[in-house]
Formats: sequence, structure tokens, C-alpha cells
Amino acid sequence: MHNGDAALARLLARDASPYDVAGVTALVAGVLAAAPAAREGDWAALVAPKPSTELRSALTALADQLAAAPAAPAPGPAERLARLRAELARRSVHGFLVPRADEHQGEYVPLAAQRLAWLTGFTGSAGLAVVLPAAAAVFVDGRYTLQARAEIDPALYVQRHLTDEPASDWIAQSLKPGEILAYDPRLHTLGEVERFRSAAQKAGGSLKPLADNPLDAVWTDRPPLPLAPVVPHELRFAGESAEHKRQALAERLAADGVDAAVLTAPDSIAWLLNIRGGDVPHTPLPLGFAILERDGTVELFIDPRKLAPGLAEHLGNAVRLAPPADFGPALQRLGAARRRVQADPASAAAWVFDTLAAAGAELHRAADPCQLPKACKNATELDGTRRAHRRDGAALTRFLAWLAAKAAQGNLGEIAASDRLEELRREGELFRDLSFPTISGAGANGAIVHYRASPRSERRLEPGTLYLVDSGAQYLDGTTDVTRTVAIGAPAAEMRDRFTRVLKGHIALATCRFPNGTSGSQLDVLARRALWEAGLDYDHGTGHGVGSYLAVHEGPQRISKLPNSQPLLPGMIVSDEPGYYKTGAYGIRIENLVVVTPLGAAAGGERELLGFELLTLAPIDRALVEPALLNDAEIAWLDAYHARVRAEIAPLVDAATRSWLEAATRPLGEG
Amino acid sequence: MHNGDAALARLLARDASPYDVAGVTALVAGVLAAAPAAREGDWAALVAPKPSTELRSALTALADQLAAAPAAPAPGPAERLARLRAELARRSVHGFLVPRADEHQGEYVPLAAQRLAWLTGFTGSAGLAVVLPAAAAVFVDGRYTLQARAEIDPALYVQRHLTDEPASDWIAQSLKPGEILAYDPRLHTLGEVERFRSAAQKAGGSLKPLADNPLDAVWTDRPPLPLAPVVPHELRFAGESAEHKRQALAERLAADGVDAAVLTAPDSIAWLLNIRGGDVPHTPLPLGFAILERDGTVELFIDPRKLAPGLAEHLGNAVRLAPPADFGPALQRLGAARRRVQADPASAAAWVFDTLAAAGAELHRAADPCQLPKACKNATELDGTRRAHRRDGAALTRFLAWLAAKAAQGNLGEIAASDRLEELRREGELFRDLSFPTISGAGANGAIVHYRASPRSERRLEPGTLYLVDSGAQYLDGTTDVTRTVAIGAPAAEMRDRFTRVLKGHIALATCRFPNGTSGSQLDVLARRALWEAGLDYDHGTGHGVGSYLAVHEGPQRISKLPNSQPLLPGMIVSDEPGYYKTGAYGIRIENLVVVTPLGAAAGGERELLGFELLTLAPIDRALVEPALLNDAEIAWLDAYHARVRAEIAPLVDAATRSWLEAATRPLGEG
Repeated sequence: MHNGDAALARLLARDASPYDVAGVTALVAGVLAAAPAAREGDWAALVAPKPSTELRSALTALADQLAAAPAAPAPGPAERLARLRAELARRSVHGFLVPRADEHQGEYVPLAAQRLAWLTGFTGSAGLAVVLPAAAAVFVDGRYTLQARAEIDPALYVQRHLTDEPASDWIAQSLKPGEILAYDPRLHTLGEVERFRSAAQKAGGSLKPLADNPLDAVWTDRPPLPLAPVVPHELRFAGESAEHKRQALAERLAADGVDAAVLTAPDSIAWLLNIRGGDVPHTPLPLGFAILERDGTVELFIDPRKLAPGLAEHLGNAVRLAPPADFGPALQRLGAARRRVQADPASAAAWVFDTLAAAGAELHRAADPCQLPKACKNATELDGTRRAHRRDGAALTRFLAWLAAKAAQGNLGEIAASDRLEELRREGELFRDLSFPTISGAGANGAIVHYRASPRSERRLEPGTLYLVDSGAQYLDGTTDVTRTVAIGAPAAEMRDRFTRVLKGHIALATCRFPNGTSGSQLDVLARRALWEAGLDYDHGTGHGVGSYLAVHEGPQRISKLPNSQPLLPGMIVSDEPGYYKTGAYGIRIENLVVVTPLGAAAGGERELLGFELLTLAPIDRALVEPALLNDAEIAWLDAYHARVRAEIAPLVDAATRSWLEAATRPLGEG
Repeated sequence: MHNGDAALARLLARDASPYDVAGVTALVAGVLAAAPAAREGDWAALVAPKPSTELRSALTALADQLAAAPAAPAPGPAERLARLRAELARRSVHGFLVPRADEHQGEYVPLAAQRLAWLTGFTGSAGLAVVLPAAAAVFVDGRYTLQARAEIDPALYVQRHLTDEPASDWIAQSLKPGEILAYDPRLHTLGEVERFRSAAQKAGGSLKPLADNPLDAVWTDRPPLPLAPVVPHELRFAGESAEHKRQALAERLAADGVDAAVLTAPDSIAWLLNIRGGDVPHTPLPLGFAILERDGTVELFIDPRKLAPGLAEHLGNAVRLAPPADFGPALQRLGAARRRVQADPASAAAWVFDTLAAAGAELHRAADPCQLPKACKNATELDGTRRAHRRDGAALTRFLAWLAAKAAQGNLGEIAASDRLEELRREGELFRDLSFPTISGAGANGAIVHYRASPRSERRLEPGTLYLVDSGAQYLDGTTDVTRTVAIGAPAAEMRDRFTRVLKGHIALATCRFPNGTSGSQLDVLARRALWEAGLDYDHGTGHGVGSYLAVHEGPQRISKLPNSQPLLPGMIVSDEPGYYKTGAYGIRIENLVVVTPLGAAAGGERELLGFELLTLAPIDRALVEPALLNDAEIAWLDAYHARVRAEIAPLVDAATRSWLEAATRPLGEG
């Protein structure tokens, strides 16, 4: 408990805080609405330039009190839906779209933007609800079918498959002629709007944007927007100054005849300005918008309360700060000045384009200009990620050695296992957070591709099963993401066959050499071919881009069945993660991160070739490898990889781990 | 010489022709403006229902006379350009776009639409001219760099690379502020217009559609539109009645809530209505437009003079005939009725969309509905193509045997070789035309991917060189396309290395097994990997779709580096044609056609697999195979393929060819 408002007010005044008690309470509520990691950080510096020990204690007490306060009695799902429908009727529209996405179209959304979860109870990371007067539906993809069934009241919502039974079909069938389906244009891309408009027209109805969100109007207990401290990302990690980045992009805008670029992706803004934050879990970014001008200056729309001391100096004079509410007016000013403005139809909301166009801007639809340079890591970032991967590999190796001993004793559960792994990672230098919630799946749970263990779902690691662990961390010098599949006890022959086919795919991709201009989509088949030969496959992508102390999933590159024309360029980090999943039985995935590296012209060759440098360092379970399925080159690859893992990780781990590591990495021929 | 107008008039009247002499002269001029093959066909039936021998003779004489008439003295390229610029000035615009495409965006265009060639002299199959007041440029791709240099006057046009130096860049730099760049909206897709509009705006200028083409206004010696007879494509070849096709597509339109689909691709119309023609070379299609209604009826816009007797009955009551000039008014009527109309942005001209939208239609942008069912051949078409491939394989095998003997004697040239091949193909049952101009390239000419031999360019087939021949035919029951590369004398080790890598790629693709939903783009790398390993590659696609007595290049499927999300579906025919080209030295390509075939679930597998059935039957030159580079499975594949070629082709060829074939197809182990 903190000692009462009067005491806090005295401490705030004494430490020259600009806040009164009400202000600081709102600020702390914002900190609590950010990622859990933010609360562990130095947010007290947001309150006063040099907070005293007493103020820090008072703030901690205030935070504890706010966090512990019982939630206001919230209406149940039926009441929420009824309130939303009443609000829609009040606005003379008939239906409303509730996507999972927020205004930034990112992977993680803050509590204040979890509208789909609030309305329907569904907490998955992708989905959409469509509410009509007499019917409502929730659309989720295959990962979430079971979870949604448990979370959603079937009396309120029908559940549909997001891609196999698209919302547009349901709308076309369910909307009645003359009805108006409304949407919040800040939460949808142009492509989505186009699709839903077509569906509504097919039904004889229409689609209508609303200036403000009717769900927010009835969401009385909506959490505040997050306020995690925004801090500099030091040059020793970033490798290139923000000024240099801004100037380089500005030259590109000028060459394209563009006056300004609107940036709505927070990881792009974080990269461009060399800043990091903690507004959402696992991705160290501050939420905000920005406009990059062709002269290299930037207007950054961000809540000023979350700027850590000194951040304005770090940003410099060329970055003008403005509150988020100024973003719309700024777009209108660009339009009124008849300027040529770039925005990315893949990530910017329809509202950005609508606002610009209505105000008179000339639109230039093009990819977010930060995306490609952010994806191509510089030498400093690559050195950082190599170091981060050694530390991460040491933590994972310690975990695997521990697991080998522990699992043999029986009784180990999925959550205890992932807790131990997190504990070991936290000991690593420069560790800040996990890069995503660990997937710790034993037996049949390993076959659920995006499984997340809960006390109700978790299984024990039992002999004769496989254990799949997909995890990663955010270090100041790099982001990691690695999957290992481990045999608990003796694996069945089928498991070894499947694992070895997955390994063959992993190796085929890791070792491939390809000419400049090759995209990840072109290489995807290499990782699948050994499975296809046996009539098997996996229903996810083979590789995603990875940021540098930023998003663990980033574009524009991707290794996937889906078409993607972005060539793989030197410095791009991608995952190599084929898998195999037998529903109800076991899951297999082998994931390493690799970085695209120029190989130079091959001997006798005519084309500049690119290849992959392996970043991830941890043993691959030899017990699951069936040598008869591997050719000589594949065996040589595995032995060489294990020799490298041994050489680089052994010096970083304790003696017991080292001795386990030596056995785990011996050549395949040694049985 | 025909015997004078009076005699012809008498014969026309006697045979109950609806034409007078002027009318029949125009008709014959149209026949002469069609594909050369049309003139060899029964076009006299267009003139009178049952033309007498005398009338036939008179018509032949008239055709000979028209064909032999000296061309009107045509202005030179400088004069043509000056006249176009004067015409543009008269219309108060500053520039004009002259594409190679006609109103159908097809591969071959009739003489009357060869505007780019008339204006600039450039006769390649792809390109664009941009004419501005003080500058003009021609854009051609890499295949045509040298040819364009020879054909285009550099004093009139700068020459640029179509993709590396896009016209939009040149326009953005060369158009002056305030200037108007005009275009003919019947000759460009929406995407092109968008690109050029953006370029013009970047320059501070604008882009403007013109209601009629200013080049046509100054093209005084423009040939007439082609009038090749339009004939039924018999059910025994088509396998599905036109009525059935129309009804199936109509149901799809109804399900999509679409009232009508505009068809602008002549091969789609030919497929849908089971008709064939000869308006352009090598692809047996009639030029025309059509509108498919949701009730399954069709309005076909086509010159009535070219309909062969009985064609209207073949089409039936559900197909209404209208002259081409009615197409625009028909689009306007659809718009005035506020109907929902589908058109394909990839193939329909911007003019179609503009006309529909201006008239009030609701636009539905979607792929040409004929494209996919046309690509998936039915059992009758597949049986036909298998038969056609046996005949074609026999002709090619006879050629290869002849070549083996002839080339050894020295002195054989590229044109004589391809003439001989054509002669042998013409002997085949149901032969109608070549499916494209034969590529017959000896030595360094083989390295020119789209080489076409001319008396000036041709080389002799000399010992120590490679000879590449890429050819195909149109048979009533199927379309073929095959490439073989043959060693003349003893090949160098490097040639054998490269050939074997190309062969490895060919085999990897031909033998791959893949799950439902896989696109050709996903498989492309399989054909390139053995080359990439050595730092080599080829700069063209790996496979294209092939029609059934229709276009030798058709979509929507494609095996290519370029993204293409069309899954390969059972019945689709595609080529498998990796290559390697050493500029100035030699070219290698191995091309077979294959058809996508369901394999069923593999033993122990979980996914339905697809694979390829090989259609093309002709020996692959064993002298060019380096067995040390092949693994056991690859050697087994080649031996099995050759055994099949021998079994199927030997019964169809003469004894001398058969004895050559037996040697050419013996197992690789037999040296």
C-alpha cells in the first residue's frame, strides 16, 4: 500500500515531478497496461528526472495497488454483444466488423485494442468478428479452432474458418438487402475494406466507415493505452545513426518524387529513430505514428509521457514530437498542401489513405520505406546477433542437458520445462524479454503448431514421446528464435523417419546456394521435398524474417509456399523451420536462424551466389536421426554443425552441461 | 491472273454468292491478311455455299493477284514519325504510347495491329514505343536488344531495356510539366495505364485516353483486318460441348452474383464455343469479343464474313452473332442496365473497364472465367494430345535420325534443318500448322533464347558444336512443343557437364511429387538447383501452359521464378524446359511437355499427391550425358524414358530411323 495521496503529492513536488497525483496515477495505469517487462524496467524515471528512493517506493506501492484493485464488474458476453448492437442501432447502421488488429496491424496489440477478446472472449492472435442484427460470427484460423470453441459462446456466435470459409462469404449470405455494415477504418487495410465492400454489395447492402469506434463507446472498462518508457537503442547495437537512416530514406523519397512517407508500423519507426519501448509483449517497440519528410526530418506522434529522460536529445532537432491526436490533422495538412504522400497499403489503415485523399493529397502507394533497410542487417547488428546467439545457444544447451537428466526421472511438465528455460535465458547478458511466448509441447501437444501450455492443457514429458520446444529471447544485441524436438526415452521408428525427413529439408534449405534475385518462396520446396516424397507436409511457412532486438517476425522476406517476390538480400535473417505434425500423437520441428551471405562467384560459375550462414547453436537430437535416410553430404553437414556447436558453446557452459554436450554432438558414425 | 471483274461477277452470281466483286475483293484481302495457313485452307466456302471449280479458280487467281500487287510506296520511318507527331499536335496532345499489343493482349497480332512495327520498324513480339515532341524511345527486352538495334533508326529513337530501364522512368524524366501523354485505351491494361499515369504525374504532366488511335489515322497503307474461316472444333477433339461449358460457367457467374462476363481473349472464346480460326499465325483462333450472360447465352462480336458455312448452326440459338462494332454499345447497355459485370484486369483493355464504369455498370474484376477450365484438359483432350505427341515424336525422331546422318556430311544449315523438320511434321495426320516459328540454332545461335534463323544469321551445323531445335505443331487433336539439343561431332567436356546439369533439373521437375495446392512457382527451383550449385542459371521460365489445338503458351499456371499462385491441377499441360546458354558459344535446352496427374495418397502418406505424366516422346542425346554427374535414380529415369520412346515410336517410323532410334535409346550403361 502506498501511504496516501498526500504523501505521494509531497514526494512528487520534492522530486520536481511535473505530475500531480491524478496525473501520476494515470501514468502508472499506462505502465501497467504495457508489456509485463515494462513494469520491471525503470519507468519511475518517467515520473521525475531523478526519482528519490522514497518516490520510487511510493510509485511501486501505487503500481501494486492499481494492479491489485479488483476489476469493475464487467458485463458478460451476451450483454456486451447486446450493448454493441444497441449502439449500432443508435448510429443507424446494422452491422459492424471487429478485427483482432489494432491501428498498426502488428502481431501484438495492447490491452486497450483487444476489442475482439473483450467482445467475444476469443484471445487468439488472429481473428475477426462480424456482428449483424440477428446473427454474429467469429472467424479464426486452423490454429485456433479448438481454443475458440472453448472461449466463445456458441449461442452468441457461429464459428467459421478464417480462410476456408471467409468472412466475405458469410457477409454476402447473411447481410440483408439495404443493410449497412459499418467498420472502423483505422483497423482495416484497404484490401480488407475492398473485400468486405464487395461482399456487402453482393448481398445488396453497403459498407460504411465510422468516424469513431462504436465498440469503444460501450467498452466501459477499457484499459488505458500503454505507456512503457521509450529509450534510445544505442549505436553500438544499431550500427547506423538515426540521422544517417533518415537521410538515406529521404534521398530515396526525393528520387521517387515523393514529398512525405507516412509510417504506421511501430517497428519501422523504432528502427528508423533508433528507439525501443515496451508497449506490447515480446517486441520492444513504442506504439506511435510518424511522417518522414523528403528533407529527412520526422514528425513523431507519440504520448510525451512515455519518453524517457534524454530521449528528445537522442532524437535531435530533426525529429519533431507531437501528441498522437495530431496525426490526423497532420495528414490533412499534407493533403491541403496537395503533397505527394507515400503510404503502404499492406500495413497502413484505410483511414490513412481516406484522410489523405479526402484532404487532396496525391497518394503514392508503396512499401514502407523502412522495411527493406531494416531487414538487411548491418555488420554491427550481425556481430550482435552472433553474440546473442552464442549466449542463447548456451542457455538452450544448459536446458537440454538439464532436460535429459530431468525427463529421465519422469514427472516433468511442459510449464516447468519452459519456466526452467526462461530462467536460464534470463541469466544471459543483455537479456530483456522472451521474443514470444514459449511453445513447450509434449506428446500430442507438440502437434499443435502454435500451442501454448496452460495448467489445464499441459502434459508430462513421458517415455516414448517427443517434446517440442520453440522459444527465443530479446537481447539488446539481437533477437533469437529456435526450435528443438527431443526424444523422451526411445523414439519409435516412425518418429525417426519423420524427424529425419524434416532434418533433410532443414539441411537442403540451409545449404542451398542461389543467385542474386532469388526469393524465399522459390526455395521453400527444398525444405518440403523429403516429406512430399512420402506423402507428408506441414501447414505453415518455412521461414520468416527476424529483427535486431525488434520483432521476431518481420518482412518483407519470407520462405513460404505463398508467393513472395522479395529477393533474399545479404544481411537478412530468416528462420529455417520445416516440421511434421501428427495430430493427437506428436510434433516435430527443427528451427535455426540463418543470415543471407554473399558467396561470390563459384569456381567456374557465372553468377554471384548467395547462401546462408547459420546463427543458431544448439544440438539436434541424434537419437531421432535415422542415418540410413541421409546421404553422405547430409551426414557431413550434421557432424560439422555439431562440431561447431561444441566448439562455440562448450566454453560457455558448466562442466556437467559440457559433458552432456560432448556426447550430444559426437559424429553420427559414432552411434 | 483472274479473268477480269465481269467474269468473276458472273461466277459469283451463278454460285449464289452474296458478294459482288468489290465485296469479294475485300474478303480475299482479309484472308490474305490472316495467318499464312488460312490461305491454304478452304476459304472459298466463305464466298459461296458450294463454290464451283470455276469460282474456286477465279478466287485463287484473285488472291494471287492481290498478293502479288506491289505495295503502295510507303513513307520511311522518319516520315511516319513526323506524320504521327503532326497528328498528335492536331489533337492537342504531346505524346503517344505505341505498344506491341492489340486489343486482345495476345501473343500474336494480325498485320492490321502491328503498329509498333509500322512506326519504328521493330518486328519483335514484345515492345513499346513512346513518342514525345522532341524525343522518342523504343523499349525492348533482352531477347530483342540486337534485333531492335538492326531494325530501328537511332536518329529517331533511343533504345531502352523494357524491364531494366522501364518506360515509366523514361516518361517521368522526358515528359515536360504540363504536357499531355496520350494513349489508346483499347491497347493497354489497367495496370499499364496506372503505371504510365503515375509516371506522367511524376513529370508534372498528365495521361489522356483518346477515342480513336492517331497512328491509325496516319497509317495510310494499313492492311485490312484478317478474315480466316471460323470453323467448328469437333466434339471428338474438344470432349465437352460448348453448351455444357456455357452452362457450367453461367452457374459460376450466378454463384458469384455476376450478371455477365466480358471475354476479350480470343483463345478463351474459341475454347468456350468450340470454334477455331486462323486470324493470327500458329494459334488457330478467330479474333473477336464475347459477352457471356449468367443464363449461359453468349453474344459473339465477330465479322460475319469469316463464319464458315454451318458455323451459326454449330453455335446454336444461345449464341447471338453481332458485328465487332456492336461490342462498345453492348458494354454501354450493360452499364445502363446497372448490371454487375466481370472482366479480367490481366487481359481486358482499360477501355472495357472505362466504358462499363462510365455507363454505370458495377465492375467485378476477376480472372477470365474460361482460363482455368480451358487449362484443365478433359479426358478426350488428353487422349488427343497423347496421340498427337506420338505422331509428333515420330516426326522429330525421323528428323533426328536424318540429322545424325546429314550433319556428319557437313554443310547443313539451320534453315534447311528446320525446313526438313517442318516437312516431316506436315506428313503427320491432323497436322494444321506449326505451333510457333521453329528455333533452329547452331553453335552460338543456340545461345539466343528466342533465336529465329534468317539467311543472314544462319550458321552451319559444325563438328564440335551443339545444335538446339525448339519446335512444335498444331494438330487437330493437340498442340506440341519440344526442344532437343544435339551434339554435332564430339562434344567438349564442359558441354557435357552443362547438358547433364540441365538434364538433372529436367528430371528433378519431371519426377517430383507434390501435394494439392502446389503452384508451378514453388517447383521452379528443382529445375535450377543443379545449375545453381555450379554458379549457373538460365534467364527464362521453366514451364508454360499449353493449349489443346490452341495457344502453345497459355495460363494461368506457370513454372517460373516469378510468383504465380495458381495451383497445378489435374489435366494441366505444362512444359519442363530448363536450359543453359553460353553467349557466343552454345545453347542447351531440354523440353518435354508433361500433364499434371493425381497419384493418390502415397503408401503411408497423408496427403493426396500430384505428379507429372510425360507426353513428349523423342530421344535425349546420350552423347551429351555425363553419367558420373547422375545418381542412380536419374540414370534409371533416363533409361526408362528411352525404353518408352523406343516402344512407342519405333512402330511409327521407317527401318532406317528405327535402327538409329534403337541405338539412340539404349541404356546409359551400354556406353
